[in-house]
Amino acid sequence: MGQVSYNHLIDLNRYSTNQWNDMLRLAGEIMRNPRIYENSCGGKIMGTMFYEPSTRTQMSFQSAMLRLGGGTIGFVNPSVNSSVAKGENLKDTAKVISGYCDIAVIRHNLEGAALAAAINADCPIINAGDGGHLHPTQTLTDLMTLKEEKGKLSGLSVGVCGDLKHGRTVHSLIKALSCYKNNRFVLISTDSLRIPEYIVKLLEDKCADYIEISSLDEAFLNYDLDVLYMTRIQRERFESQHEYKNQADKFILNVKKMKKAPEKMIVLHPLPRINEIDIEVDSDPRALYFKQANYGMYIRMALILQTINYQLNPDNIPLLTGEHNSGLECRNMKCITRTEVYLPKSFKKESGDFICEYCEEKVKAIPHRSGVQSR
Amino acid sequence: MGQVSYNHLIDLNRYSTNQWNDMLRLAGEIMRNPRIYENSCGGKIMGTMFYEPSTRTQMSFQSAMLRLGGGTIGFVNPSVNSSVAKGENLKDTAKVISGYCDIAVIRHNLEGAALAAAINADCPIINAGDGGHLHPTQTLTDLMTLKEEKGKLSGLSVGVCGDLKHGRTVHSLIKALSCYKNNRFVLISTDSLRIPEYIVKLLEDKCADYIEISSLDEAFLNYDLDVLYMTRIQRERFESQHEYKNQADKFILNVKKMKKAPEKMIVLHPLPRINEIDIEVDSDPRALYFKQANYGMYIRMALILQTINYQLNPDNIPLLTGEHNSGLECRNMKCITRTEVYLPKSFKKESGDFICEYCEEKVKAIPHRSGVQSR
Amino acid sequence: MGQVSYNHLIDLNRYSTNQWNDMLRLAGEIMRNPRIYENSCGGKIMGTMFYEPSTRTQMSFQSAMLRLGGGTIGFVNPSVNSSVAKGENLKDTAKVISGYCDIAVIRHNLEGAALAAAINADCPIINAGDGGHLHPTQTLTDLMTLKEEKGKLSGLSVGVCGDLKHGRTVHSLIKALSCYKNNRFVLISTDSLRIPEYIVKLLEDKCADYIEISSLDEAFLNYDLDVLYMTRIQRERFESQHEYKNQADKFILNVKKMKKAPEKMIVLHPLPRINEIDIEVDSDPRALYFKQANYGMYIRMALILQTINYQLNPDNIPLLTGEHNSGLECRNMKCITRTEVYLPKSFKKESGDFICEYCEEKVKAIPHRSGVQSR
Repeated sequence: MGQVSYNHLIDLNRYSTNQWNDMLRLAGEIMRNPRIYENSCGGKIMGTMFYEPSTRTQMSFQSAMLRLGGGTIGFVNPSVNSSVAKGENLKDTAKVISGYCDIAVIRHNLEGAALAAAINADCPIINAGDGGHLHPTQTLTDLMTLKEEKGKLSGLSVGVCGDLKHGRTVHSLIKALSCYKNNRFVLISTDSLRIPEYIVKLLEDKCADYIEISSLDEAFLNYDLDVLYMTRIQRERFESQHEYKNQADKFILNVKKMKKAPEKMIVLHPLPRINEIDIEVDSDPRALYFKQANYGMYIRMALILQTINYQLNPDNIPLLTGEHNSGLECRNMKCITRTEVYLPKSFKKESGDFICEYCEEKVKAIPHRSGVQSR
Repeated sequence: MGQVSYNHLIDLNRYSTNQWNDMLRLAGEIMRNPRIYENSCGGKIMGTMFYEPSTRTQMSFQSAMLRLGGGTIGFVNPSVNSSVAKGENLKDTAKVISGYCDIAVIRHNLEGAALAAAINADCPIINAGDGGHLHPTQTLTDLMTLKEEKGKLSGLSVGVCGDLKHGRTVHSLIKALSCYKNNRFVLISTDSLRIPEYIVKLLEDKCADYIEISSLDEAFLNYDLDVLYMTRIQRERFESQHEYKNQADKFILNVKKMKKAPEKMIVLHPLPRINEIDIEVDSDPRALYFKQANYGMYIRMALILQTINYQLNPDNIPLLTGEHNSGLECRNMKCITRTEVYLPKSFKKESGDFICEYCEEKVKAIPHRSGVQSR
Repeated sequence: MGQVSYNHLIDLNRYSTNQWNDMLRLAGEIMRNPRIYENSCGGKIMGTMFYEPSTRTQMSFQSAMLRLGGGTIGFVNPSVNSSVAKGENLKDTAKVISGYCDIAVIRHNLEGAALAAAINADCPIINAGDGGHLHPTQTLTDLMTLKEEKGKLSGLSVGVCGDLKHGRTVHSLIKALSCYKNNRFVLISTDSLRIPEYIVKLLEDKCADYIEISSLDEAFLNYDLDVLYMTRIQRERFESQHEYKNQADKFILNVKKMKKAPEKMIVLHPLPRINEIDIEVDSDPRALYFKQANYGMYIRMALILQTINYQLNPDNIPLLTGEHNSGLECRNMKCITRTEVYLPKSFKKESGDFICEYCEEKVKAIPHRSGVQSR
């Protein structure tokens, strides 16, 4: 496509586990020796382009950059943002803002938006969440927490609990951990919120050990968990209020359940939580979700540092590696290519299907139109 | 309660007047020698958690931190704040944000919110206003202004004018100045907006000299004021539009009234003003309310510096000093314990009454319920 | 008027072209040697007072200040701003904020607001746009782009295209370039959106070469343009949808039209664009509007530096140079003096008319009222 290839972090899967490990190592090193790094981004500026608000993520990035000695500028919420309100496209905003910055962080409600920004930006772009698609710095945060707390990323018995069907965070974490050896996945959810088929297939392809069950009690009893990863389970996902009341208790973690959990089992949560972990659990020393949020700051420091020092993409791999195909069109209404129509379309072939390179949804070939037109 | 006791500033009354004096001295020292302090918080981060907007206060804190060489992150207004909008409780937000920061400033519309945040935070918390309850940095600003302009905090004739019934600022200032010797309080208001009984009682307990009058003219004529502290007097506080027109003039400061005021009498106002001081008064050299706002920046610098250097709470006094009492319940609808129900309840006994330790409102014992249940 | 004369930048026309040239030279010097300047505003604070949102402009100023080693505070949008929402006047806000800052940038929807703020501020003020009136840093950005890209500001053939009737940016640019020698202005617009009479008069007074035409094609064919300055042409400016469709194509720049344009002709645009330049034009090396936005950051760095070092107003010229005249009243509903009624009125006489010094609109004398009153 010819675009300059900065050192973006759009999708963890573009990097090797070796590169992930390097980043986790650097994050730990920074955490243990913060003074060494406190001016390593002196004179640099990070821009935060938050098309949807996410206070927690934005403040984590900002504190990371400040702790490296850099400065931050940014916007949040396009509704109070004149240029965007005036209808400016993502490309123009990305071009201009990236011209002011040394690194930019984007969060957007549409899938593929970070990739779209990166194609057009004049500085490296970090994906801080693109709709329900990717959120790589959350996954890195989770990996760092496991690495620091468990000392390893392999040979773990990993419980994940909640809405496994819609939970982007959980999908990414499972994908990431399946790249390490001998991890077992204990998938705890209601029948209607089970993990999607493509994750199951991925686990089977990698010959990973996994089991699907329907209560926390069973998980604690039978699977010797090293970690329990809790996620939100939204009331509106249940078929009825009755169904919710019936089921929810099995997935809410409280002090009583914690008594049955393994001594070594740490509890994580991407936050914010609603009610899926009782507040009383917070004082349990195994409850590490607040510490996990703090690790997030250090992994972002490592990421910013590596990105600014151009260590992430030494081979200069281009952003778009698929092909243009005028017979294909992404139909995913949440894909950024539907609203930013000027974007170069790009499709990849995966096991016989075409995948939109922005949102990674399957694409159907457009039926040949001459026949239709000839009628 | 077991919580770690950081060096919070929630309530001025937790500190001695000696500690206030130290802070005022440091603020003056910083103001006169700003270069000495310009990197004293280098590498440190302040978070501003503004659950209700207050541009003036937030910018004062931010400029204070920047002038000490530190950095700032923050949010304002939960309605554009996803985590809070998603229903996250104050504890979780305070836990996560405080993990990114070295010091955090909170402003909230509910009473006791700063104390509630401090209980759960992993860094020192400064109260930048919790509903109509406390606003200690405004009081410190007022004390610094008097100290710098009058050279002393005792032996002053202090006029306060406006809505003395609802004005949090005025109550705090009177309480603070009553801790110094020989101050006289001239309380100028309409009959319906008189100072509350508990302040009168406090003045009498301390044998302080005070008088309640109903016009500025009388104050200027009879009480040789060193300072006139003006506050907003909101139109809607009057019983009728007629009553407002009749009364308001007695409490609006203008050039004509200033001619009758003592030469030495400085005019202060916490700002923003609406119309209680005519704009023409601004050019009178005794009008010091803008200078007062500027002192506010220096006192905040002193406060940040002392807080970060852990000089405020050397004895490590715990945050909650009251007792849990299951027979008591705070009924104040503006108290933070009403919405953040997980907070440990804590009550103090004061002259026979129980006081909620968060909002400091009197609490009635809950009637014994067994009778009700037995029916 | 007695006000202290800081080193404000309210109106470019208060400075000589020599001073403009100095600033352009400094901006180029900073751009080429950024490291030399990276701590030249260390310890200084810039406040951004944005009464209307303008993300682009605000971030440009913020990144400029950060790149000089300074810090920034600020607000945007008074609707989420308590003091302003409470009804505080511009003077009080300017007084307080300027007390926290070393330099302040104001953007406001009303004409003359920057001058009004400057009169009352305790630090230098930069005008970042006051309604449809002035936007001097955009004009400096445009001049810098021409200077850097064309090597000169005189002897240029300058096409300007779009809504020339309402376009503040274009009026300022033409006024500025008419101060340099031998520039030709090719004014491209529909009949109903022609340049206003007062600009035509100014060009004639300066004996500048200009021509008004109605299509881009004609401009490319006949006028050997060095630069084409495009601006938004809003759909609602046309008399009908039909008229819009008929006309708009003549003013939309696309790849096809670019083929007919001179090789040397650079394309500029103040951004944001809507659809007046096809996105495909972006890859043409003559399309410099994104680079232009980047020049904007450097010129703002130069401006901040000169302002903070007090090099702009060595002769200490007062802000208001007109006279008070109780028989005159500005009737422009968009003038800041209409809402901020305490402002000292000031009028200048220009070719027989009185001009309000804030909004620069012509003022009619108020008819003598004694006759009316005597009835």
